[in-house]
Amino acid sequence: MPYIKTEDLPGIRALLAFSPATSTPIGELANILLRDTEGLSPAERELIATHVSHLNDCFYCDQSHGEIACYYLGGDRDLVNEVRNNYQTAGVSDKLKSLLYIAGKVQKSGKSVTIEDVEQARLQGATDKDIHDTVLIAAAFCMFNRYVDGLGATTPSDLASYSARAKQVAETGYGNHIFTNKQPIAEKI
Amino acid sequence: MPYIKTEDLPGIRALLAFSPATSTPIGELANILLRDTEGLSPAERELIATHVSHLNDCFYCDQSHGEIACYYLGGDRDLVNEVRNNYQTAGVSDKLKSLLYIAGKVQKSGKSVTIEDVEQARLQGATDKDIHDTVLIAAAFCMFNRYVDGLGATTPSDLASYSARAKQVAETGYGNHIFTNKQPIAEKI
Repeated sequence: MPYIKTEDLPGIRALLAFSPATSTPIGELANILLRDTEGLSPAERELIATHVSHLNDCFYCDQSHGEIACYYLGGDRDLVNEVRNNYQTAGVSDKLKSLLYIAGKVQKSGKSVTIEDVEQARLQGATDKDIHDTVLIAAAFCMFNRYVDGLGATTPSDLASYSARAKQVAETGYGNHIFTNKQPIAEKI
Repeated sequence: MPYIKTEDLPGIRALLAFSPATSTPIGELANILLRDTEGLSPAERELIATHVSHLNDCFYCDQSHGEIACYYLGGDRDLVNEVRNNYQTAGVSDKLKSLLYIAGKVQKSGKSVTIEDVEQARLQGATDKDIHDTVLIAAAFCMFNRYVDGLGATTPSDLASYSARAKQVAETGYGNHIFTNKQPIAEKI
């Protein structure tokens, strides 16, 4: 159970239901950052999110976003695990490796990222938008991971539950209707 | 200059102008988290933001939010500096000290927060909403700080510029019209 009194929902969903006012921009940020198809693909974005969550040892986010990446990758869970364990030898592009390197630095501290790291990513084909999105995804997961674990959110141990949820999120997106049982944002507007 | 090509704006404002899609939920999140008057006061919220930014060594956010806290506190910059340097001996309430303690733990890792830390804050009068908001403010500044420094955003060294900006933000709020030179959100909708 979380440290505060919430609805009985897993992970971040209980916290978002506790605080509807903040849940709306948080859901919108996740939706834009992780489902934008300009530049990085949704699979690449979820792999960056998984990498940072893994480094932050946030089991809920690591499993949740790893399973969403897996869904986008046609079920290739081995590739997701390769990225988790050692992305430098994983079967991903050199461009993504250079961005995962930057994401790992952001996880430690924003100040650890250097212009040389960014130039190296550019040499592998990364655009300014790719670099921006990578830093913001990594920074955002430093928020999400701390939100989940800092309030002791419930973390399901049944791995199958993450797969079922991943399919739902990948097909319909992040947003209030995913995080809570409330109406979709679109219907509210 | 930031690591990516942006408009010539200080700190996070250049990054928000670079990416309008993500700037909207980021501005809304800041506005709700830092200006909500239910529970913690805006001054207390800005002190938590300043404490975390100081711990993350993010000069831009530390100065920006310290000055906003100072504005709310009627110009009491000494109190802001006391919180920066050693909040345990600062002239703030025991409740705020217990929440600053939790915020400092969140800055390190969400997992470092314990149920005992939360119970201690409750003994000092903190509600579930106070605890939720403290953890989310601290987590959000772990994002903002990394966003700013991870992309090498321009950090003005002229301290007076932060005071002028603080007055503007304190009086009119966070949002796209604050972060960029674009139209206010309200006018766009």
